[in-house]
Amino acid sequence: MDNFRFYVPTDIRFGKDRLATELTDVLNVYGKNVLLVYGGGSIKKNGLYDQVIDLFEKNQNTVVELSGVEPNPRVETVRQGIELCRENQVDVILAVGGGSTIDCAKVVAAGFYSDKDVWDLVLEKGYGGKALPLVTVLTLAATGSEMNAGAVISNLTTNQKLGMGGPSMIPKVSFLDPQNTFTVPKNQTAAGSADILSHLFENYFRQTTGTDVQDFVSEGLMRTVIKNCPIAIETPNDYDARANLMWASSLALNGLTGSGKGGTWSCHAMEHELSAFYDITHGVGLAILTPRWMNYVLSDQTVDKFAQFAKDVWGITEEDKMKAAKQGIQATYDFFKSCGIPMTLPEVGINEDKFVEMATQAVAHSTIKTDAYVPLAESDVEAIYRECLTESIFV
Amino acid sequence: MDNFRFYVPTDIRFGKDRLATELTDVLNVYGKNVLLVYGGGSIKKNGLYDQVIDLFEKNQNTVVELSGVEPNPRVETVRQGIELCRENQVDVILAVGGGSTIDCAKVVAAGFYSDKDVWDLVLEKGYGGKALPLVTVLTLAATGSEMNAGAVISNLTTNQKLGMGGPSMIPKVSFLDPQNTFTVPKNQTAAGSADILSHLFENYFRQTTGTDVQDFVSEGLMRTVIKNCPIAIETPNDYDARANLMWASSLALNGLTGSGKGGTWSCHAMEHELSAFYDITHGVGLAILTPRWMNYVLSDQTVDKFAQFAKDVWGITEEDKMKAAKQGIQATYDFFKSCGIPMTLPEVGINEDKFVEMATQAVAHSTIKTDAYVPLAESDVEAIYRECLTESIFV
Repeated sequence: MDNFRFYVPTDIRFGKDRLATELTDVLNVYGKNVLLVYGGGSIKKNGLYDQVIDLFEKNQNTVVELSGVEPNPRVETVRQGIELCRENQVDVILAVGGGSTIDCAKVVAAGFYSDKDVWDLVLEKGYGGKALPLVTVLTLAATGSEMNAGAVISNLTTNQKLGMGGPSMIPKVSFLDPQNTFTVPKNQTAAGSADILSHLFENYFRQTTGTDVQDFVSEGLMRTVIKNCPIAIETPNDYDARANLMWASSLALNGLTGSGKGGTWSCHAMEHELSAFYDITHGVGLAILTPRWMNYVLSDQTVDKFAQFAKDVWGITEEDKMKAAKQGIQATYDFFKSCGIPMTLPEVGINEDKFVEMATQAVAHSTIKTDAYVPLAESDVEAIYRECLTESIFV
Repeated sequence: MDNFRFYVPTDIRFGKDRLATELTDVLNVYGKNVLLVYGGGSIKKNGLYDQVIDLFEKNQNTVVELSGVEPNPRVETVRQGIELCRENQVDVILAVGGGSTIDCAKVVAAGFYSDKDVWDLVLEKGYGGKALPLVTVLTLAATGSEMNAGAVISNLTTNQKLGMGGPSMIPKVSFLDPQNTFTVPKNQTAAGSADILSHLFENYFRQTTGTDVQDFVSEGLMRTVIKNCPIAIETPNDYDARANLMWASSLALNGLTGSGKGGTWSCHAMEHELSAFYDITHGVGLAILTPRWMNYVLSDQTVDKFAQFAKDVWGITEEDKMKAAKQGIQATYDFFKSCGIPMTLPEVGINEDKFVEMATQAVAHSTIKTDAYVPLAESDVEAIYRECLTESIFV
């Protein structure tokens, strides 16, 4: 196990119907001028927007809105948010939405205090400065952004989708009410679950050994998602299924499963290029890539971990390690497919035209060539993309 | 899943050799006057005391010492610590030790700001006031006190051992260096591991359903302890085994496995009386009681959860649920025994003389009669104590 620091001071308010009695008290700690950040308007359909505005009125807040945050939030939107905060002397940001909305709000919060253009801030990756306080109301179980200090921003003019983060950007308080995810459609429930699983997989398959706490906890969270995602798809208002997905999303990426392990992530680096070039849903890209990546890096060197994964997560009893490993990869693929996720790139409008360019970018924007679980050169990434052109069978 | 708040702002500095470069910076945030709290002197044997004192000298701290904190820390020691803080205008408390030392330091930190006698504060259970900032250096993987807001204090004149806690009592920073547990003797390694497992069991076997995150994470932490405790006993300086036990101890009782679940704990309530009356090692008492408690509450109503426990934690493949459940209980008992823990009460000097009195107190000091996993009356507690008089076979 490597040395690590674990410091996650987000105050999680989990459960039913807490906003009415807690939200304004939480915001009042920081001030009355609020920037309200949200996405495409689903919160106007399900009543959450009206509830929040009503609470603001009773609490005599001054509110400005940054709406229409994109599924892959764009730097132009972030710039607009920073302007709004400066023009209106905003004291605190309230993000109501999923990971995209929260990520956008985080970078607005940091950019507010910086003289630089915010894209330069993104390019620097690590942020050590101050940020406006951020409170979130989560509406989608997926990215874990509600309980960590990172954010991903896209720049479609340069075809770049890049991560940045810093301690001041972690939300002060996050409200996690599973009921706010009842209206999430089946395909987004599936894509969000694939995102959670991918965070767990990326942390699980790393080179550091002696990390039983992280790995066994991760297996437990994987089993949680595998059990509850199909229930939430079948019965969208199953409270416990939604609650388990929501809490798993936060714990999958708050340091619990990744701290103490070195090396970089592989599938996220490859997926970010798909999203950057084609603007596809992040979780779908991850679901398509992951089983092909697993199969590509499976070898005598990695078979023990994949066999452990097959046994502990999928309950596979096959004793031959290589066979068990392949069955585990097949189970992963079949699970995503059973959730209704399109499992080839052509199904989401991607063909081989830009494979070389995207592979080059995936390596350039990350360290997968040197310190991934299994290091990947441009040709490896291209080969993995190519495996995603048609349906796959691994056993 | 029940509503819950999860707010664990302790800054964990995990890993090798961090004190030299980080400790004084951490303490300087609060001031130069330090109360150093420690136990029976093991830190003087293993060099930790000298290292800390040396750092204090270089940093020009003023240090007063509260030493000799008991394994079950006594209220008299807490009173002495509060006096020292007041007489010396202490700014920050540094606890170097295991859970007993940290618990004592927490109540000193709270009592410092109270006009009441500190035992009255303990009797009130919940503490809402201020506390002196507390930094810890952990030397024993067991109680989880390094990452939570609770403390247990004993009053031998009234035969009471009671828990108290409040948000201000959570450590600001905790240094977790697995190397500091290399010198922990085999019997204390085993007892500490039993304590960790008991925290996980108590949170796992509760009435709230729909808590897969908590339960599957808990199973992962149980498997971590079951795998690594025997390694640490066999090879005391196995870094990864000690690291996994240490991090598991913190996560077992920081809210991760208990938040979102209602009801009270059973074995701790029964064990606290054993410690209060006979001053035995807490973890040993828990190991003795737990399998007998499991067997006592096993029924058609609880068999599903015990069968899940047997399968997921012990890998038991028996398909008959009741048989599987009993095998899981037997495996738990055999595990503790294989770690060298004395598994009957007479072996730790306890006979039936005070069973009635202790059972009465166990019910009086807790809510096990009304809201335990399976409610326990005085006669139930007495029956469970009685089962601990001789070796047990459950299958």
